[in-house]
This record gives sequence, structure tokens and C-alpha cells, in this order.
Amino acid sequence: MGAGHPDYLTVQAINALNRVDVFFLVNKGTEKGDLLRIRREICERFIESSTYRWVEFADPARVLSDPAYTPDIRSWREKRALLYRSLIADSLQDGECGAFLVWGDPALYDGTLAILAGLLAEGTLAFDYEAVPGISSMQALAARHRIALNRIGETIQITTGRQIAGGFPEGADSVVVLLDTKMDLRAISGDVYIYWGAYLGTEDEVLVSGKLHEVRADIERIRSAKRAEKGWIMDTYLLRRNGAGNTGGNR
Amino acid sequence: MGAGHPDYLTVQAINALNRVDVFFLVNKGTEKGDLLRIRREICERFIESSTYRWVEFADPARVLSDPAYTPDIRSWREKRALLYRSLIADSLQDGECGAFLVWGDPALYDGTLAILAGLLAEGTLAFDYEAVPGISSMQALAARHRIALNRIGETIQITTGRQIAGGFPEGADSVVVLLDTKMDLRAISGDVYIYWGAYLGTEDEVLVSGKLHEVRADIERIRSAKRAEKGWIMDTYLLRRNGAGNTGGNR
Ligand SMILES: C[S@@+](CC[C@H](N)C(=O)[O-])C[C@H]1O[C@@H](n2cnc3c(N)ncnc32)[C@H](O)[C@@H]1O
Ligand SMILES: C[S@@+](CC[C@H](N)C(=O)[O-])C[C@H]1O[C@@H](n2cnc3c(N)ncnc32)[C@H](O)[C@@H]1O
Repeated sequence: MGAGHPDYLTVQAINALNRVDVFFLVNKGTEKGDLLRIRREICERFIESSTYRWVEFADPARVLSDPAYTPDIRSWREKRALLYRSLIADSLQDGECGAFLVWGDPALYDGTLAILAGLLAEGTLAFDYEAVPGISSMQALAARHRIALNRIGETIQITTGRQIAGGFPEGADSVVVLLDTKMDLRAISGDVYIYWGAYLGTEDEVLVSGKLHEVRADIERIRSAKRAEKGWIMDTYLLRRNGAGNTGGNR
Repeated sequence: MGAGHPDYLTVQAINALNRVDVFFLVNKGTEKGDLLRIRREICERFIESSTYRWVEFADPARVLSDPAYTPDIRSWREKRALLYRSLIADSLQDGECGAFLVWGDPALYDGTLAILAGLLAEGTLAFDYEAVPGISSMQALAARHRIALNRIGETIQITTGRQIAGGFPEGADSVVVLLDTKMDLRAISGDVYIYWGAYLGTEDEVLVSGKLHEVRADIERIRSAKRAEKGWIMDTYLLRRNGAGNTGGNR
């Protein structure tokens, strides 16, 4: 469903929405007000009939400090798998079509497709499923800064806050960081350029770019203020070593 | 404009197409028949008025063996920049809107945004510009295989064929390879799982997945046959070490 703006939806996604009988809607607690609202608005805007139903469910409790911490995610996914199994079994009639509205692109740091593959492999439920790609937060970040993610001939690394807590990844060129909830960015120093974006695609969108040592304080200030104001934050950034002269994107 | 299928277009892209007076269309030689045709079909399908114009231009000659080779790309980009400057100066009236139709997502291995930033920085032309994200080939690959690109808590590396010619990138988890025109995949051995896709989103789409040593011969055969048949090939793949049991995507 793209990373925030309804205009990020593809024609394929809109066609898929129009085939759905039941939308499974996760209620994530803190972010719920805004993210549920955006999902509902997207359905209202793009779906022509009004015969679809919502099934809202609470996210299984996660005892975790860090949303990118592997063992925590594993056990949380197992709980989710059980929940998805009963949602599908209980809410869908034979021949009906259900949908999980995944934020951004389902191929980036999202467990929905793996859970569905697991349920199918178990063999207790029979269903077919399809994945619909969407504009991810990292693409929204690049587009809003009007840059390419890579420099010429170089690699891109996509990673989590947790993994950069030890510093700039060795040997990496351009590094995209998602899931930095604890300001792991603090671990990064040296000659680094940053393109940062929060609430991309939404009315709260904020963009900052520059040499990290020059803009770091701004980013920290905006993060705290926004988090205090809204109760949650979603931000993503691109880091590059040898910061000088990078403003032209990937030249 | 997404990686091949017109349904990959976003609402934002469709709205943008409808604001354009002049489309600059690169003619790439070999692939031209198909890729030009897809671009034209997209415009015909989504644009409501018929007041827009096409300006076709030939890609500046590239003396290169390998499309991911940095020095070659640099000099080729300089030629392109000169060409873009005259295209914009000669074909656009004051107040008109021009567009470059970038394949996939402009943030991935594409020079258009960097060239435009460079032209603007030069100061000889005055214009404003906007980047519109699109579904990239790597997202189409993941969606068609119904997998996430990352495994839990791990990183994703996006890279070029050239860079894997030395073997599986050290320390990397999941590796997405674009621009492998010379079958650099041959350099990869060991316990690796591959998700491969060619002509994604088009009517020629082919998907293969499995343990690399079991499917490598198939991939090579399909590549040669398709390239012989069509005169060009576009393929992308995801590689993962410790191949066994990866079929469930990112679990
Ligand atoms: C669990 S991951 C899911 C990513 C999602 N599948 C995607 O394609 O963007 C959640 C992380 O994505 C990033 N994110 C998602 N939406 C965002 C937005 N609109 N603005 C900034 N960051 C966003 C944040 O880093 C957040 O912690
Ligand atoms: C110069 S790069 C541009 C990538 C593009 N900007 C994107 O977002 O996909 C070209 C490479 O993208 C990959 N590619 C693009 N479209 C593809 C498709 N439809 N199917 C498979 N691979 C594709 C191939 O690896 C090709 O060599």
C-alpha cells in the first residue's frame, strides 16, 4: 500500500483492493490512530463497491526493546502466525478473498509473506495468495530528496538501526537504515552525509539533509519534538561516507 | 514508470504523466523495439489529453563492455548531460513541463536525477523538477516470488554483476544483483539459494528459484535462448547463503 501517501498506490494495488471481501487490519497500539486512519482512507478512496468488511485485530504482545531484534521477532511471528490462521479460518467463507494491508513494500522488513508461506506449508488451511509490490519508505526518501540511492557503480546496503549501532558498516558505500527507534544514528561519526526523512508521504513529512555532524542536532531535536507531539515516529535515512560534494545525488 | 507492467504505475505517476507537455524518449538501440513500445503504451493508456509531444533521442554512444563500469558511466553521463541540456533548451517553451520516463525506480542504478541536479547546479538553465518513485525490478522480483528480500533482522545488499564477479560479497546476507550482463553469476558457488527473474512484469516474464547448483544450468539455458530470441535480456536475482530451507521467504 505504499509508504504513506494514497497517491503511492499502484494500479495493480487498486485493482487488488477492489477484489477483496475482508481486510485484516492490525491495531498496533501507539501508532494506531494515524496508521489505521490512513489505511481506511485508502480503502474509501479507491474501492468502488461497499461490500467489503473490516476485521480488526490487536497485534500480539511483543516483549521487546528493539523492533529489529531477531529472537524477539521470531517468537512474535509465531504468535502472529497462529492469529492469522484463525483470522483466515474464522472470517473468510469459501471462495472469498482476504487482504493484509502491508505498509510500504511487503518485501522490506515485513513478515506477512513469510507467515502466509508458513501457514500454507503447514497444510491446515488451503488458500492461494499473491504479493502486490508497493512504494517503500526508502524509495519515498530518495524521491523526496531527488536522489538515487547508489553512487555510480557502487552498492547499496539496506539495514536496521540495530546493525549500525556498531558504526558505519564496513566496506559499505550507501547505507539505508530502517527501524532505528533508539537513535542508533548516534553511533555514526566521521565524514558522513545523511539524507533523512520522517513520516514520508504524510502531512507530517520532514526532510533534512547535509553533513551528519552539521545536521545531527537538528535531526535529534525534530525527532524528539515530533515523537512527543504524535506519540510515535517513523523515520528512514541514507548514509554515505565521504560526505563532501554528494548533494548531486549519485554523481 | 515501474519495471515493465503498466499496472505498476502509481496514481502519482499517472497524475504526473497528465501534466507533461514533452516526453523525452531515449532510443537505446537493441532493446528499443520493446522498451519504446511499452513506454508509448503506458502514455496512451494513462494520458487523457492528446496534446503532449514526443522527442526521441539516441543514447550517446557508449564504448563499453560492462554497463556497471564506473569510468565508462562517468563519461557517458557527461555526454548525456550535454544532450539533456539541449533537449530541454530546444524542446521546451517557457512554462512547459518535460518528462524523462525512467524504467523501474529512478533511485536505483539510473543517472537521470543526478544529471538534472548537475544541469541545475551549472546554472545555464532554469527549471524545477520532481522525482516520482516507481516499482523497481527488485520489488517485482520479490513480489513475483512472494518473498521478502531480507531474512529476519538481516541486511540486504543491492549490487551489480560486476561487483559479484569476485564471489559472494563478504559478510552479506541477502544480495540483490542488477546489471549482470555477462553472467557474472558464474562466480558464485557454495550453498546459495537463488530467486531469479527475467523480463519481470512483461509478457516474457520467466521465474526460477532453487538451490543455485541445481538451477544454474536452467538459468543459463533460458538466458541464452531468450537473448537469442529477443536480442536483449533484463534479469535480476536475489542470492542467499545457506540456501536450505529458504523457500519460506524471510523466515
Ligand atoms: C517494519 S519496517 C517496514 C518497512 C516497509 N515495509 C517499507 O517498505 O517501507 C518499518 C520502518 O520503515 C520505515 N518507514 C516506513 N514508513 C515510513 C515513512 N512513511 N517515513 C519514514 N520511514 C518510514 C521506518 O524506518 C520504520 O521503522
Ligand atoms: C540500469 S538498471 C535500472 C534499474 C531500474 N531503475 C529499476 O528500478 O529496476 C537496469 C537493470 O535493472 C534490472 N531490470 C530492470 N527491469 C527489469 C525487469 N523488468 N526484469 C528483470 N530485471 C530488470 C536488470 O538487472 C537490468 O540490468
